Amino acid sequence: ILHSFFSCLCSSACFTGQHGVKGRCLCLDTGVKIIHRGQIEKVELTPASPSCANVEMIVTLKDGAGRKCVNPESKFAQNMMKRLMMKR
Amino acid sequence: ILHSFFSCLCSSACFTGQHGVKGRCLCLDTGVKIIHRGQIEKVELTPASPSCANVEMIVTLKDGAGRKCVNPESKFAQNMMKRLMMKR
Repeated sequence: ILHSFFSCLCSSACFTGQHGVKGRCLCLDTGVKIIHRGQIEKVELTPASPSCANVEMIVTLKDGAGRKCVNPESKFAQNMMKRLMMKR
Repeated sequence: ILHSFFSCLCSSACFTGQHGVKGRCLCLDTGVKIIHRGQIEKVELTPASPSCANVEMIVTLKDGAGRKCVNPESKFAQNMMKRLMMKR
């Protein structure tokens, strides 16, 4: 708990690091609204499930810069997914 | 190589298992066109990059059933992403 508390302090998109522990979301908040597109290595989307009622979007950043929760409802996230799915 | 060859035989959506080794895509083919929605634990999208010119979609299946490459251009993939991004 202490670790995730401190990781919350340093980044606005808190990430529990636990992988979907029963009854727990991976993201502690709604996540950031924007990320520099060039920094994105991978996007993970976890559908709502018994362990978390939210659809969660977690972006893995390049060069080992970590992972960040992104708000899937943000304009940035919506446009990014459209672009990815239309391969532009 | 042998391992990935055999994993190709048993599943139609070959997956190299290597994580973006320089100059290599994660998926050896375009991937399956459809997956049972209830089996999906997580969806990973990797944008095109110097190591792979394709946008790649890899679905992690529930209950440790493994991971599968999915064709991001398939109707199923397009509809799934729309649903996820509109949280229905």
